[in-house]
Amino acid sequence: MIENPFYGRETQGEFKLYELGNLILESGETLRGARLAYRTFGKLNASKSNAILVTTWFSGTGKVMEDVYVGPGHALDPDRYFIVIVDQLGSGVSSSPQNTPAPQAMAKFPKLAIGDDVRAQRQMLTDLYGIERLALVIGGSMGGQQVYEWAVAYPMMVERAAPIAATARISLHQQVFIETLREAITSDPSWNAGWYTSGLAVREGMDRMARIVAILGWSAQFYQEERWRSVVGMSSLDDFINGVMKAYFEPMDPNVLLCEMHKWQRADVSRHTAGDLPRALGRVKAKTMVMPISHDSFFPPQECEADYRLLPDALFRVIESPEGHMGLNGFEPGYMEQVDRHLNELLAT
Amino acid sequence: MIENPFYGRETQGEFKLYELGNLILESGETLRGARLAYRTFGKLNASKSNAILVTTWFSGTGKVMEDVYVGPGHALDPDRYFIVIVDQLGSGVSSSPQNTPAPQAMAKFPKLAIGDDVRAQRQMLTDLYGIERLALVIGGSMGGQQVYEWAVAYPMMVERAAPIAATARISLHQQVFIETLREAITSDPSWNAGWYTSGLAVREGMDRMARIVAILGWSAQFYQEERWRSVVGMSSLDDFINGVMKAYFEPMDPNVLLCEMHKWQRADVSRHTAGDLPRALGRVKAKTMVMPISHDSFFPPQECEADYRLLPDALFRVIESPEGHMGLNGFEPGYMEQVDRHLNELLAT
Repeated sequence: MIENPFYGRETQGEFKLYELGNLILESGETLRGARLAYRTFGKLNASKSNAILVTTWFSGTGKVMEDVYVGPGHALDPDRYFIVIVDQLGSGVSSSPQNTPAPQAMAKFPKLAIGDDVRAQRQMLTDLYGIERLALVIGGSMGGQQVYEWAVAYPMMVERAAPIAATARISLHQQVFIETLREAITSDPSWNAGWYTSGLAVREGMDRMARIVAILGWSAQFYQEERWRSVVGMSSLDDFINGVMKAYFEPMDPNVLLCEMHKWQRADVSRHTAGDLPRALGRVKAKTMVMPISHDSFFPPQECEADYRLLPDALFRVIESPEGHMGLNGFEPGYMEQVDRHLNELLAT
Repeated sequence: MIENPFYGRETQGEFKLYELGNLILESGETLRGARLAYRTFGKLNASKSNAILVTTWFSGTGKVMEDVYVGPGHALDPDRYFIVIVDQLGSGVSSSPQNTPAPQAMAKFPKLAIGDDVRAQRQMLTDLYGIERLALVIGGSMGGQQVYEWAVAYPMMVERAAPIAATARISLHQQVFIETLREAITSDPSWNAGWYTSGLAVREGMDRMARIVAILGWSAQFYQEERWRSVVGMSSLDDFINGVMKAYFEPMDPNVLLCEMHKWQRADVSRHTAGDLPRALGRVKAKTMVMPISHDSFFPPQECEADYRLLPDALFRVIESPEGHMGLNGFEPGYMEQVDRHLNELLAT
């Protein structure tokens, strides 16, 4: 194990840990003594009909979902709903390469799948609260991949689903892209096949990865209009790459990011139906609000729209955000206003 | 010097070498014994009014321009025009890191600028043929950057200009992108600060670069529709990455690619006007056919259109090609048909 204060309560705020026990993974391996980090807001009503599950994205934790998406005034309002935010496995806060003891520590942490997260989350919600049906499952990016997995794997448990900036099956374009991120880290000699002495030792590879993320993470328009000035307050392109992109990833654990990439790169609900995506999405019972981001180069609107057309009962709302995928962080005032409006529309049905 | 058969006549076909002598560069350095590789087609008429200059792109040489763009049936028809294709400096065929002797060999090869190419090309055309005016300057990508440089630096010499898939000033988005390519090569320990024993020794870094090129070089749609099957005859994503992207770059010289990246990343006609792009493009006398590629992620159509709006006498024609930037290679039958049609329209004026 490697002590990394970034994943502790001082940075991540208050969270609780749910002991899953031994989680048998899709791969066949067992993650021993698995734990899910979660935080809740609001009260579960007597009929248990007001529960909302919020999932997390690549490199993100429950903290950003709490700060940006949940609270009075938002659609995810703790006065009305019982909101559970769960950190994905391998995120650094839930069971992850850097916080799991031998013999599953660091490079020996097992390979995970999005389906493992969803099974673990289901076990937790059933066990802790007896929740049998979720009023809404919502998440962005890899969080949205979990939303699709929920809706396909447990159709009777999901009343509404809101995947933001995500698709039900990873695109081949993103498979290539994620591989470049992986190679940026693993080509750093200090990565040492996952047995580095500290995350900071792998800074060179992490920095290279941060710059590659910047290529597709932000839109061409974001660069053309030099929006880093207004959006993140940076004074030049280098200032932005160093002060935002590299600084964002620097405190994180390289094996954590690699663990998440592995899941991200393979997310595919059609593995439930032997590769038949229309049949997989045809299973979904949830009323689904498909919400791409207008300038997203990870999950372009037209690819999200293709999923929407395969869903039995869905709405399609494009969130206008010239930032592109990174708009998910709610940098722009107009972003959450749109998300809340669309979620309120969905929750009213 | 490193012997690299890829840049020889067996691979590149017939070309001639023009001895520039000592070329004083924009940087202030002097490239000693500089040479331009070129090939000509057709005959210069008595009034010297039918000369067309064709430039080359990143990693490309005169060979691909000859094979794809020039010939009977094409707008660039040797029966009507005197066509000169010039390899850019640092391309591997013209003076380049791997073919220049000490003390300017390999890592000591000087940093070049697009402006150096254009001055060298002008010297050659004047010296060899007494050409004072070009009926057309045409090129794609970095070749298009040279076209813009010609039109701004020597407005009286350029009657018509056709930049394909290029902008007059490199975008900040591409600056970041090109940096990731540079880092992919230079982070390979075998690169050894440019003093590798052979290009193939740097294969790991070159392979990483090839995959990053694939992210933006081909469109999201190209991946979504698995167009590598029809366009380049590959059977899977890995087959495409290995058999097309990595195989394409493998025989090339790493310092050559780095030399070209340096130019590509800094191309900017507004350095003639203290950063004032409207004023720089306002100088252009050429009738200019601005031709972006519809799905291009390097030089998106809207960025090309912004240049078009600043040009005094220009036409704007988007080439439909779902491949994206790599469409430049003419994989699709419809590609050259469109280019020829637009060029014929331009040449008729």
